[in-house]
Order: sequence, then C-alpha cells, then structure tokens
Amino acid sequence: MTEDEIVNNLSVMLSLSKHEAEKHRRIILGIGDDAALWQPSRSHRSVISTDMLVEGVHFRRDTMSLEDAGWRAMAAALSDLAAMGARPVLATVALGVPAANAQPEIVELYQGIAAAARRFGITIAGGDLSRSDLLTISVTVVGEVRTTRVKTRAGAGPGDVLAVTGALGAARAGLELANQRGLMDGANGDAALQAFRRPTARIAEGRFLGASANVTSMMDCSDGLSTDARRLCAASDCGAVLEAIPVADSAREAAQRLGEDPERFALAGGEDFELLVTVRARAFRYLAGRYEKRFKKKLLRVGALRKARGVDWRGAPLDRLGWDHFLRRGG
Amino acid sequence: MTEDEIVNNLSVMLSLSKHEAEKHRRIILGIGDDAALWQPSRSHRSVISTDMLVEGVHFRRDTMSLEDAGWRAMAAALSDLAAMGARPVLATVALGVPAANAQPEIVELYQGIAAAARRFGITIAGGDLSRSDLLTISVTVVGEVRTTRVKTRAGAGPGDVLAVTGALGAARAGLELANQRGLMDGANGDAALQAFRRPTARIAEGRFLGASANVTSMMDCSDGLSTDARRLCAASDCGAVLEAIPVADSAREAAQRLGEDPERFALAGGEDFELLVTVRARAFRYLAGRYEKRFKKKLLRVGALRKARGVDWRGAPLDRLGWDHFLRRGG
Repeated sequence: MTEDEIVNNLSVMLSLSKHEAEKHRRIILGIGDDAALWQPSRSHRSVISTDMLVEGVHFRRDTMSLEDAGWRAMAAALSDLAAMGARPVLATVALGVPAANAQPEIVELYQGIAAAARRFGITIAGGDLSRSDLLTISVTVVGEVRTTRVKTRAGAGPGDVLAVTGALGAARAGLELANQRGLMDGANGDAALQAFRRPTARIAEGRFLGASANVTSMMDCSDGLSTDARRLCAASDCGAVLEAIPVADSAREAAQRLGEDPERFALAGGEDFELLVTVRARAFRYLAGRYEKRFKKKLLRVGALRKARGVDWRGAPLDRLGWDHFLRRGG
Repeated sequence: MTEDEIVNNLSVMLSLSKHEAEKHRRIILGIGDDAALWQPSRSHRSVISTDMLVEGVHFRRDTMSLEDAGWRAMAAALSDLAAMGARPVLATVALGVPAANAQPEIVELYQGIAAAARRFGITIAGGDLSRSDLLTISVTVVGEVRTTRVKTRAGAGPGDVLAVTGALGAARAGLELANQRGLMDGANGDAALQAFRRPTARIAEGRFLGASANVTSMMDCSDGLSTDARRLCAASDCGAVLEAIPVADSAREAAQRLGEDPERFALAGGEDFELLVTVRARAFRYLAGRYEKRFKKKLLRVGALRKARGVDWRGAPLDRLGWDHFLRRGG
C-alpha cells in the first residue's frame, strides 16, 4: 500500500469530524494538499503544514550534520507554504533526541533550524522536547496568504502549461555523492551537496506565482516530478504530457557517472523543493518574462495539461518513479 | 541539564529571529508558555502547540493500545489549548511507524486520534506519514481565543488563590496499575486506567475560566503540580504556599498499596491534564460557585500566591518532584 492510498483511507475515516468542522469552523482545505487552510479573518487565509524527519529514513549522520538535518526539516516544511503562495509566520518544532548527550545534539539541530528560520523569515514560536532513541524532527509551519492569492493542487485545466521553478535532480545527485565520495567534485559536486543538505524553500517564487491570476494550480515537487505531476493532475481532474525534463547540471553529471538516464534521474529524484505550477497557456510567455526579470532565472516549461487522465512521457504513460517512504529507503 | 534549562538556552539562541518577528509579524507569545500565540485578526488570537509522543518513552504497547496512544497524544496537545482558554480549531498529525505492518498500526492510531478529535471538537486538517522504527506521534493543535480572554502563565500576583480543576494523581495511579496488574481493581482501578489511557483535556473548563477577568493566570498541570506550580510562579514573578493537595481516590488507594505518601504521589504524578489557575482572592468564592454549578464539580483550592519566590509545602521549600523526560523514565 502506498502513502497516497493510506492517506486516502485516513481521509475517509476522518471525514465525519472533518465535515462537521468545515461547516462550523471555516476550514477550507484539509487532508490531501500541501497544507491545510483555514480562515481566521475575512481577508486572509492561514495555512498549516507538518513534516517529520526521522534518522535513518530521511537523513543519516554519515551523510549530513545535525545542523543540516535541522535546516532540511525546516526547508521541507516551508516548501509546503511556498506551494500555497503563503508568507511564513511561525513554526513549532518537536524534537526527539537520545537522552545521552542530548544537549549538544539539540543545540546543533537548533543551529540549523534557526539558520533556516532567519533565511526564510519565520519565527520559531514553540515546541516540544522528548527523549527518543531515533533522532526525530517534527516541524509544523503556519503561513498567511490573501484570500485571492491562495493556490492549491486543484484548478489546472486542459491546455495549461506545466512548469517548474528550477531544474530537477540536484538533491538526488547530492544524496548519491554523500553516499559515494569521489563520484564527482567541483561546482557540480558543491551544488549537489548544497541541494541535498541545505535545500531552498521557494517562498519568494511561491508568493510571486500565487499573486498571478493566471497560475491555476501549484504544489511543491518534493517527491519527484513523476509522482507530483500525477498528484497535481489527479487533484485537478485532468492529465498531462511531459515534453522536456529540466535536469540540473549536477544531476546530469551524477547520472552519467552512475550509468543512469539523466531525465529519469530528475523525474524520480525527489526532495528538490522546486514548485510545480500550471499557467494559462496564453499568459505563460508574459508571466515567464516577469518571473525571469524578478528572479534572474527561467520559469521552465515541462509540458502541457490535457483532458485525458494520466501523465505521458516519451509517448507512453509514465511509471511511478517518485519517492515513497513506505516503498523504499530514502536519504 | 533539565528540560526547562535546555528550553531557556534555546530561547536565547532563537531570540534574534524571534525579536524581529515579534516586531513584524504580530507574534505575541513564543517559547516558554503552554502554547504560542499570534494575532491573525484584531479581535482574535490564534494559539498553537506541539506535542511528541515516542514509544518506550511516553507509552508502551504492553500498557496501552495504539488507539489509546493516539487519543492520549491528542489530549495532551489539546490540554495546552485548554490552558490558554482557547477553542480548538484544527490539528495536524505526523506519524512515524515501522514499515512492516504499517497500515493496521496507522489505522489503530488514527481511530484513537479521530475519537479524541470528535470528543474535543477539533478537525484533523493534515499531517505527515513517515517510516520510523520507533512509533512516534507528533500532534500540533491550533486554537482560537478572543483577545480579551487569553490566559498565560504570567499574570498571577501575591494573594491570588491557586486552584486546580480536579484532583490529581489518577494518571500516575493508572500507570502503576498498568505496570502491575492486580494492584487494585473496582471503580478506582477503572478510573485510574481511564485517566492514564484516555485523559480528558479540560477544554470547556479552560474556556469558562479564560472568560473570567478574575482568573489571572492559567496553565495545564501535565508535568505534576510540583513542577508546574513552580513554572507558573516563575512566569508570574512570585511564589506560592501549597495548603492542601487534592488527591484522586484512585491515586490515594494506589499510593497506599505501594507504601507511598498519597500527597507526594499526587504532587509528582504528572499527566493529569487538570488546569492550574490563579484567581483574585476576593472573587474566588463567587467564581468557584459558578464553576461548580456549571461543571458539577469543585474548583479546588490548593494554596495561595505570595511575593517571595519559591513554592512551599508543609513549611519547607518543595523539592522538584515532577516529570522530566530527560531526568527519568515516564509511562
């Protein structure tokens, strides 16, 4: 059973209380999108998202420092706010750390957490400390977005352009390099390790794209384009044809050295935290121009939406290639 | 180093970003109270709190079912909302579960989570699923409270009455009974196990007390009266004299059977999730009368605040008796 299937089952189990609450408590979007959404005031929406990182599953101490792990947990959670077009407000952090040597480990984790908080403009407002034999970091982030600017996974339609905010596969290349030193070096090696250990949440890009009425849906690409394009299409009740996969230079080099197809590498890589957006076709060129002027990088077209369900690539339905922590081992 | 000391150190480390954010982002209360507080609109405050439960630290499968563990995680987090006088709005749940047999375990946990969500009127709005060899439940709750009704740990003054919403020690009695079957049975045994496995968050009591201008501070008593009275006094910059410790019947029986002092048992027990409040002395009798009429139980006076720091009991400063997951093993 995949994570998506489990989540669907849980949604059904929780649907009674969810339904009651949606009626009474102004909860607009619940389980299934990047973040949940509610309405604390007429003009704004609040957005909330939770991520858990577990030692040995999401990170290993031999491939990243605890400071990196703290940063990464924050970036992963913040990426879900970016995906909704939201501005970060505050975060809570629950840490589980082994009792022996707890204080230095907590401090090291928090140095990474605090650095990411400063970088992305969010306040650590509270948390919980617990003993745990497995180091566990659970981050919840809350953001805010104007009612008219919220983007969800639903809203894309046939004909829309599918685009990403950056080339893919670098984080996966960094994981391979961290596991196999000497795989590559130089600028590509540095970029890969940076993408893996200190990823960037695309907050500014998300707010920019969220402000455009021509952006019809948005999500983050944290589980790999293959999995996430399928999720976006399912939520929007349509399909897509992928045309060009933008592969990060570091991912291309790593894939070639490992004898893998660079494009499949980028499709399945995961944890890049770029945003996946759909844009009305007639507005794409104009929006991409403004985006490039603002961010000094391109909004990269990867394909187009279509009516028929499923996601095709190279003339055939795309296999499931993405990350699933219940199916295989991650970083 | 105790949990309080670690939290103080972290607050200093995070203070720069916290200060910046308090200026810009309307964050009113950060690390150190039961929950963090921010202002999404002029008339209301939002409240957020996170709790992590780890198998082997906070619960063991031989003393409670996974359904109980799910309920307990929710109740513990909701208790922090109760302590602020807030109404529950939504929760996010991050679960770490072993990959083998994940689906039945997730369902069992969620049955308890959903039951508590229905009981206390909160919506599960999102979450995260992760593999983890140690079962880990991390719950974040968001509540809402009118600006004029928020209660924090600070605000108590000398002369105020210190009171709790119910007798203490039952959860500890339940833990002892779960560890040692046959310790006691009958109504006391049932009550103890219920308090341990299916604790109640005092949401209605918290909202009632939060609405009174004569309640000067409030917190939950989850780490034991001994530890929590000290925390409340420190936050309010005063001290207290404890006069009478209300011991739950089940706790009295368990302590006697174990040869322990029932009052110390109640003081140190922890995880009762009753609320600890301070009330202006001249208003206590009136408020307690209204409370009893509303809830069919007494608001129990346990002592009085004083100017001199520290908490005294039986004529001497109270030892540290409460729960600390970094100092000793919990349930």
